[in-house]
Amino acid sequence: MDNNYVVIMAGGIGSRFWPLSRETYPKQFIDILGTGESLIQQSFRRAKKICSIKNIMIVTNKEYKHLCIEQLEGVMPSNILCEPVMRNTAPCIAYAAFKIHSANPNANIVIVASDHIIMDDLKFFSVINDCLEQTAINDIILTLGISPNKPETGYGYIQFTSENLNSHDKIKKVKTFTEKPNQELALNFIDSGDFLWNSGMFICNANSIILAFRKHLRDLFDIFEEGRKYYNTDQETNYIDSIFSSCKNISIDYGIMERSDKVYVYPTNFGWSDLGTWSSLYTHSTKDLNNNVLEGENIYTYNSENNIIKFPKNKLVVIQGLSGYIIVENNSELLICKKEDEQDIKQFVLDIKKNSKKEINKD
Amino acid sequence: MDNNYVVIMAGGIGSRFWPLSRETYPKQFIDILGTGESLIQQSFRRAKKICSIKNIMIVTNKEYKHLCIEQLEGVMPSNILCEPVMRNTAPCIAYAAFKIHSANPNANIVIVASDHIIMDDLKFFSVINDCLEQTAINDIILTLGISPNKPETGYGYIQFTSENLNSHDKIKKVKTFTEKPNQELALNFIDSGDFLWNSGMFICNANSIILAFRKHLRDLFDIFEEGRKYYNTDQETNYIDSIFSSCKNISIDYGIMERSDKVYVYPTNFGWSDLGTWSSLYTHSTKDLNNNVLEGENIYTYNSENNIIKFPKNKLVVIQGLSGYIIVENNSELLICKKEDEQDIKQFVLDIKKNSKKEINKD
Repeated sequence: MDNNYVVIMAGGIGSRFWPLSRETYPKQFIDILGTGESLIQQSFRRAKKICSIKNIMIVTNKEYKHLCIEQLEGVMPSNILCEPVMRNTAPCIAYAAFKIHSANPNANIVIVASDHIIMDDLKFFSVINDCLEQTAINDIILTLGISPNKPETGYGYIQFTSENLNSHDKIKKVKTFTEKPNQELALNFIDSGDFLWNSGMFICNANSIILAFRKHLRDLFDIFEEGRKYYNTDQETNYIDSIFSSCKNISIDYGIMERSDKVYVYPTNFGWSDLGTWSSLYTHSTKDLNNNVLEGENIYTYNSENNIIKFPKNKLVVIQGLSGYIIVENNSELLICKKEDEQDIKQFVLDIKKNSKKEINKD
Repeated sequence: MDNNYVVIMAGGIGSRFWPLSRETYPKQFIDILGTGESLIQQSFRRAKKICSIKNIMIVTNKEYKHLCIEQLEGVMPSNILCEPVMRNTAPCIAYAAFKIHSANPNANIVIVASDHIIMDDLKFFSVINDCLEQTAINDIILTLGISPNKPETGYGYIQFTSENLNSHDKIKKVKTFTEKPNQELALNFIDSGDFLWNSGMFICNANSIILAFRKHLRDLFDIFEEGRKYYNTDQETNYIDSIFSSCKNISIDYGIMERSDKVYVYPTNFGWSDLGTWSSLYTHSTKDLNNNVLEGENIYTYNSENNIIKFPKNKLVVIQGLSGYIIVENNSELLICKKEDEQDIKQFVLDIKKNSKKEINKD
């Protein structure tokens, strides 16, 4: 148990959920389902069932360190790994892996996102334990693949082969990783039966992942290997601050998963969603009699169905004649947008930023 | 000129413009067109061109006296006639007429609403002067009838005969008053050519209107005649408070206009609207390139047309994919409602009231 570690990746800025999420308060820190826990609090709660709290690492942007400390009761501040700038998942994981490996070369690591939801915790724990047993004895990178229930075009897919991991009959060798497919391709994937959703979560021992960096992302390996003497000392932050911006901006999927022949997948299903869209949030939320997802205590709806309606507790709101909309106010900012056009929200946020820069330049 | 008086009726509570208007801050006190003046301020400004400021009377509910004093620069507090309870227009006008007549039996009075708009002030003043000349020498009640430009079902109509006032060739004898007609009837009215919109404004000398009360609303006449010794003394308010609730709830149209044979109409057109609906407000407001009436400085619209959008100055709002809606926030209360369903707003306000009473009873 003391060799088990969890790394929670929490660096995303998530503009898709504006005005709920924002750069200063991204999605993972929001109680987006209205359950009383933010998404990262859920991840942290689950992590505590997998390893001891001193073995839970959070990798996040340094701007969010205070949010982690505020929200994660018992988190060790020295376990909050701060990225000085945004790079993709590969540098983030390299940092965590080297830091952990320097402290414990026998570490066995579960890497998870901070902004996904998992409905069936018990199933999740049982799968994770099963995986940890395998990664403790095998030089593999073991991803979690979710059995797809619809031809979702918003997810990446993992295709597996018929080849099993010797020591485990469920675990399959990975054939390909595919980015978000179009509708037709997604349908083919589902029909073929050998594609799974890429949950972005994976399990491996510290040694294996570091070997993979050496083989497939040598420049990142060199940078983080050079820092060995600083990890878990008071010079760690200085070192990271000095090198991080020189790291290549590359995802772990593209940099390692697609290149390594040691990548396996564990097909499973524990009610997972990356909750990357308002529509997926809508799907996972409780609805009222008119199929509205409703948050707020002083909201009157008339002739309005299939909406996501979120307002501060006491705000008096009357909504008439709207169906299929996102109607969300946060921090005095209001969004009204058709659910089917939610992909445009990123552009709205860019427009707002551009415009407020103009305003500043004017002054 | 010193015999000229203006009475501004300002007692309405206007729930149709919720959340802009509300019982504690009704429509006439709002700068509803965004021009920098509330509707009552516009009425007061015009009144000052008709008579001296000491001859302008405001009749309002006592709850709104402070709003009148705040908004109407130079108004004489003793000229704000306060109704202790809501009665219709007949008691309101009786009060003003008796008070004015007691001070000046030769008074010549223009009675106007506080919540209408008039676009062509010069034309209005010229019509009013023309009318005052006639009512100074004739025992008549002279209403202003607006040449209709469409079969509006939200207005009352005045039908005139071919009989002229002897001393003026434009002024016609009134045949009937008709309340808001249905669409078919309104079309017939327009086609017939002898119907005008009832502006609710009228001109008469103080003596004539008091005689009309004596003849057609004897009970109101008796009540206000008995108060003669109190008007314009420090006992006036006490007297009004003691008798007002016993006054019949009746409109001047129903109580006098429809019954008297001394009622004439002056057909005219000075860009008048009673601005009784969001749609009429929409018609009279400046629009952006997408035909949105837009108030607020931080509003982003995408794919949205023909809306009325009003938000506090700095509120950041994104609206996507909405057309033909009222989207208005005031006092932290938000309304989203189809323009075509705006007649339902009164019901929304009732629902809210009912519900907040329930909440209070629970405590």
